Amino acid sequence: MSASDSVPRVGVWLIGARGSVATTVVAGCAAMTAGLHPPTGLVTETPPFAGSGLPALSALVFGGHDTVDCPLPKRAEALAAGGVLPHGLPAAVSAELTVAEREIRPGGPLPGDTRTEEDLIAAFAADIRSFVRRGRLARAVVVNVASTEPAPTGEALPPSSLYAAAALRAGCPYVNFTPSTGLHHAALARPAETSGLPHAGRDGKTGQTLLRSVLGPMFTQRALTVRAWSGTNLLGGGDGASLADPAAAAAKNAGKERVLADTLAGTPEGEVHIDDVPALGDWKTAWDHIAFDGFLGTRMILQTTWQGCDSALAAPLVLDLARLTARAHERGLSGPLGELGFYFKDPVGPGPSGLGEQYTELLGFARRLRAQPAEGGPGGGRSGTPAHGCGAGEQQ
Amino acid sequence: MSASDSVPRVGVWLIGARGSVATTVVAGCAAMTAGLHPPTGLVTETPPFAGSGLPALSALVFGGHDTVDCPLPKRAEALAAGGVLPHGLPAAVSAELTVAEREIRPGGPLPGDTRTEEDLIAAFAADIRSFVRRGRLARAVVVNVASTEPAPTGEALPPSSLYAAAALRAGCPYVNFTPSTGLHHAALARPAETSGLPHAGRDGKTGQTLLRSVLGPMFTQRALTVRAWSGTNLLGGGDGASLADPAAAAAKNAGKERVLADTLAGTPEGEVHIDDVPALGDWKTAWDHIAFDGFLGTRMILQTTWQGCDSALAAPLVLDLARLTARAHERGLSGPLGELGFYFKDPVGPGPSGLGEQYTELLGFARRLRAQPAEGGPGGGRSGTPAHGCGAGEQQ
Amino acid sequence: MSASDSVPRVGVWLIGARGSVATTVVAGCAAMTAGLHPPTGLVTETPPFAGSGLPALSALVFGGHDTVDCPLPKRAEALAAGGVLPHGLPAAVSAELTVAEREIRPGGPLPGDTRTEEDLIAAFAADIRSFVRRGRLARAVVVNVASTEPAPTGEALPPSSLYAAAALRAGCPYVNFTPSTGLHHAALARPAETSGLPHAGRDGKTGQTLLRSVLGPMFTQRALTVRAWSGTNLLGGGDGASLADPAAAAAKNAGKERVLADTLAGTPEGEVHIDDVPALGDWKTAWDHIAFDGFLGTRMILQTTWQGCDSALAAPLVLDLARLTARAHERGLSGPLGELGFYFKDPVGPGPSGLGEQYTELLGFARRLRAQPAEGGPGGGRSGTPAHGCGAGEQQ
Amino acid sequence: MSASDSVPRVGVWLIGARGSVATTVVAGCAAMTAGLHPPTGLVTETPPFAGSGLPALSALVFGGHDTVDCPLPKRAEALAAGGVLPHGLPAAVSAELTVAEREIRPGGPLPGDTRTEEDLIAAFAADIRSFVRRGRLARAVVVNVASTEPAPTGEALPPSSLYAAAALRAGCPYVNFTPSTGLHHAALARPAETSGLPHAGRDGKTGQTLLRSVLGPMFTQRALTVRAWSGTNLLGGGDGASLADPAAAAAKNAGKERVLADTLAGTPEGEVHIDDVPALGDWKTAWDHIAFDGFLGTRMILQTTWQGCDSALAAPLVLDLARLTARAHERGLSGPLGELGFYFKDPVGPGPSGLGEQYTELLGFARRLRAQPAEGGPGGGRSGTPAHGCGAGEQQ
Repeated sequence: MSASDSVPRVGVWLIGARGSVATTVVAGCAAMTAGLHPPTGLVTETPPFAGSGLPALSALVFGGHDTVDCPLPKRAEALAAGGVLPHGLPAAVSAELTVAEREIRPGGPLPGDTRTEEDLIAAFAADIRSFVRRGRLARAVVVNVASTEPAPTGEALPPSSLYAAAALRAGCPYVNFTPSTGLHHAALARPAETSGLPHAGRDGKTGQTLLRSVLGPMFTQRALTVRAWSGTNLLGGGDGASLADPAAAAAKNAGKERVLADTLAGTPEGEVHIDDVPALGDWKTAWDHIAFDGFLGTRMILQTTWQGCDSALAAPLVLDLARLTARAHERGLSGPLGELGFYFKDPVGPGPSGLGEQYTELLGFARRLRAQPAEGGPGGGRSGTPAHGCGAGEQQ
Repeated sequence: MSASDSVPRVGVWLIGARGSVATTVVAGCAAMTAGLHPPTGLVTETPPFAGSGLPALSALVFGGHDTVDCPLPKRAEALAAGGVLPHGLPAAVSAELTVAEREIRPGGPLPGDTRTEEDLIAAFAADIRSFVRRGRLARAVVVNVASTEPAPTGEALPPSSLYAAAALRAGCPYVNFTPSTGLHHAALARPAETSGLPHAGRDGKTGQTLLRSVLGPMFTQRALTVRAWSGTNLLGGGDGASLADPAAAAAKNAGKERVLADTLAGTPEGEVHIDDVPALGDWKTAWDHIAFDGFLGTRMILQTTWQGCDSALAAPLVLDLARLTARAHERGLSGPLGELGFYFKDPVGPGPSGLGEQYTELLGFARRLRAQPAEGGPGGGRSGTPAHGCGAGEQQ
Repeated sequence: MSASDSVPRVGVWLIGARGSVATTVVAGCAAMTAGLHPPTGLVTETPPFAGSGLPALSALVFGGHDTVDCPLPKRAEALAAGGVLPHGLPAAVSAELTVAEREIRPGGPLPGDTRTEEDLIAAFAADIRSFVRRGRLARAVVVNVASTEPAPTGEALPPSSLYAAAALRAGCPYVNFTPSTGLHHAALARPAETSGLPHAGRDGKTGQTLLRSVLGPMFTQRALTVRAWSGTNLLGGGDGASLADPAAAAAKNAGKERVLADTLAGTPEGEVHIDDVPALGDWKTAWDHIAFDGFLGTRMILQTTWQGCDSALAAPLVLDLARLTARAHERGLSGPLGELGFYFKDPVGPGPSGLGEQYTELLGFARRLRAQPAEGGPGGGRSGTPAHGCGAGEQQ
Repeated sequence: MSASDSVPRVGVWLIGARGSVATTVVAGCAAMTAGLHPPTGLVTETPPFAGSGLPALSALVFGGHDTVDCPLPKRAEALAAGGVLPHGLPAAVSAELTVAEREIRPGGPLPGDTRTEEDLIAAFAADIRSFVRRGRLARAVVVNVASTEPAPTGEALPPSSLYAAAALRAGCPYVNFTPSTGLHHAALARPAETSGLPHAGRDGKTGQTLLRSVLGPMFTQRALTVRAWSGTNLLGGGDGASLADPAAAAAKNAGKERVLADTLAGTPEGEVHIDDVPALGDWKTAWDHIAFDGFLGTRMILQTTWQGCDSALAAPLVLDLARLTARAHERGLSGPLGELGFYFKDPVGPGPSGLGEQYTELLGFARRLRAQPAEGGPGGGRSGTPAHGCGAGEQQ
């Protein structure tokens, strides 16, 4: 991971930097850079993205905010003990984990914190700018991978929105990998629009909803009538506990249901449950039961059971998004990146809902990112002069 | 179903005309025409096909070959008793079943039949021509929905190929909805090519393979590595019994495996079993178990269980194919209709393997079928002069 | 069903007499008596019960209370249309359905009913006594098969308890096949005890819990540690709707959890969901996910999916219970019949929780019911002179 | 594991001593003795067995035959890498693995071996006797945990029977944990009978069949008619490969089907498949699909999916059997131990087939093993003087 000074380095600032997803992102990036593992699950390492000018994995530098103290190397050991990371990996990449750990700053607000929203945003933005400056980074992308927060009830900015506002202020693209509010707050609509920064979200599509986004179109394309689509998710880890909060679960489920509503003709009957089952650790089981009508009203059933590791499903998507969004920033793109709907349950901007069409859009985006070095045309900017360098053109 | 004389009527000649699928096709077409059931499962009744000039359901006339004697109305009663057709439907459409029954001719060869291949082809072709002539049909499409036959071992034409040859000789488009040989025989390659007729096949994609054709691309698009894909099918009915023959099962499985090989990078481990379970009647259960690797080699599992009624899944696709192929014939298209890969496990001609892309191709085909208004009325060609009228330009 | 006058006839008074379960009970009893169907699902028709002196199926006479109006023959037609009853059965047993329909009396209280609890109990008891008298029945058993009611919050008797009190007052044994309160109310403890009547309950064990009662002991006997047992039930019909009420669901789930707590060492993690999915009609799907530890803490998983028809599962058990309880009454048994725990999620009285041991207890009960005609010992009474004839020794 | 000289030590001689099961047995016994893991899965460590006089886990000494060379410590590392053993365990118990490794002798016959059956039996018996003598063991039990061999076709003794004969000759009780022939060979019937030694088998009931032995009785006790019971097993490891041999699979399936035939009224339709899926390693997935009829012939379905680690399921049962059989030997029991049917798919001797009744029999056996120190009657023997000490009263 020792990128020479001649290759521009790109920062990835993780909100929730000591969580399972973030730890897997940092450890996994180091493992792939060291050649210990193939890039399974990284869409951006497949051939269609070869010429898109994405930052190399070895050029990524990690830091972030978190409110918990457990250092990354220790957290990685715990994940390895639970089977989420391969045994031996934490030791093999302990240097990189330690480097990232040094770049983690206290998040907030914790109970008792008396700072105003403005104080918090300013402090967070200063942390991010300092990260960029000290690392001599060409740019940094802020990615929210923190636990899902309850849907906000009043006008106050929830924490995810404070961090999102800090990203804007620090001049950094923003990706919301969770169903939390982030930039989706009325108070942030205008700053987001005027920032000239690209942003993406919301709520990474990692398991049950990924499946739904290919099965929904199948039923529709075959003119089969889905009458009821029911689902149960069992998961432990921090995510299970935070989603046991009905308000957080409601936020999550909205995204799941949007996929069905968008890919099927009409919303079928059926509920989605999210159960906290600590015994499952970071492993998630999702059962879906789909009752549909065929020809002449014949009743048929499809059931799916998905058993996956949430962190391992999320981490490569986070790396994909950080690279794509960083490159979009470099190319001068701004506003909601609707072409990244492939990655999200509840995508920003217009776009198709079926995975196949979303993949086609993503390939189009990959082509759009290709450099036209001499021109400086749309999305160009002079070579070597990032359109919106963090630390340079800071919005305040 | 009383199409006035001014609307050209189109024949659907079914090989296996007294089987479950054929009976469901005939009864279902009558039920929809009478407004008893909505066209669930018929892709050709969805908006994108509205302007394609397809023959109306009410314009379809049925006949066919079969080697069994059980008359269609009785067969329909048996299907209703087994829950495949709605109760009351056989009585409601008994007139249409009786009309179709009268158009069924003895198939063959049965054991002891001493006729030569040429004799059989000539006899079958004469049956088809007579059907077209007596019914004053604009054209007829021959569709094979008979039980799967074992893969042929010698040079002799298997029954499915005799019927396919008869279709060519009678000047009719041919659709092979089964994995049997049909036109896929060396001896028929040249006649098919010179016939100027369109044909489609092979092996309708109704359940497990339908699912595989959306799940396979999902894994590939997400860069997840499928290590093993195992499947078990339980089915009763005639299909279960005929597929209990290992040679027939081998023919069927080849199509299923082709979908995986084409949509995944490399062929995964795993077998496919087809069990005859008479207790299940016409209902089929397919269980798939997919072991895949995610980020850093994490092992994950997806399982699917599909419980469907094979006849109800197949019948609307047969109607779709008959309409699309009849219209293709009318528009003068010839040769393998690769754009119908959406319907098949083992499609003729080149084309994508993922369902989404196949659907896109199908929509393109629907546009291609649209009339070119300057040339003649809607449906193209000079009115009343089919491009390749059966009974007129018969190839012999 | 033409029992001659010499064979004593036994009444079955159903609370919820026009519901799915009751309709299936009446139609099914008639079908078996007429020889139209074998007694699948009736434990009391198996050899171990041959000599227990149970009333013949042909000796059973049905009546009951209900608050809905749809007559039994019409209700049976609806069930046949939904696949719950065989097609043709309602017509074949319409005479018996009509006879039972005539014996159904209005239940209550409906909104606006101003009668006191005492009024209602007296009215219900009078209905039952009248049924016994007019039918010249040797005795009658009252069985609650009504929709689950919410757990009561105050001191008022819920409807199920009013009916239970009426059964006691009419001198009839009482069976609670639902999780509703019934006799489990403090105000009924003393009357139940002094009545000298046998009673059984609570909450028929028809599907998911039946499975749990064999799987729980398996884990315990093999010294495997169950860490989490999660379940989701999807069901339509009236039951789905009434259990969508969280209070009713809570009543139901208590029984399910009792089985786990009693058969496993400690209560595992995990929740149980009951979803109302009207599209499923009377069909129920129950998915269970069991995470357990094996040797050296190895994590393993068992999943079960149960797809059944609730009415068809419940009806034979209701007939079993009516026959067993009627005979127990005849033999002079009184109080909670703990040996019937085989049938219940939440059995009255002490007894084992595993199905195997419960079956052993049931076989012992079958032996205990055998007549010792000359003796008149415990549970004896002179032959032909019922110990507690309804209509004779009524408690008031 | 340093049992003092005053406690008699008991040998466990494993056929297939370097396989997954054997390695898990040795490592697991050491781990429990050292207090590293609780005895999950060991039935003999539950309270009902407390007074049965079983040898302590710390008194067990391991050795055996194998034809492969990979030493136990290395094999244990491989199992830990595959998640079968806990990480860190091989290192923690390396001393005990090394001790056992020293007691493993070459098995056979390998291709090219020219020794006669008599030569082989004599050599194997000498190995066992030497193990007992050098270890000053009170006795040793021979347990076959080798890969399943094909069903024998001629009169020659298959390897499993050579080892079984050697056990008899060395005066040791014999347990066949596999479906291989072992003592079930005509030529061994008489020696087994005259040996006066206890023996147990055949084919450990670890997963799918364990489930079947509780589900089969459930259907029977509830008078439900099972129409079809189909199953598919996916497994990698050595077992998957050896069972991909149809002859070996046939041997395995016979046991599975026996459980259904014995617990259900009649043998249902349905097949059992065993697929070799190397990607699954030592993990096994078993899917069962059970079609059954309820009341009035209503069709219902139960499906189960069992995901377990075969070695972890087998190892505690092997320890149980070694302890129980050693104690039976000490108590002078001889012949087939039918009361151990709880552990086997295809038990020796008469006995019930349902797991619940088998457990009851096992508890009776535990009581029977309790010492009656003063008596000396059958099963007694003078205290401290084993009835059939290996190395003393050797049969030759």
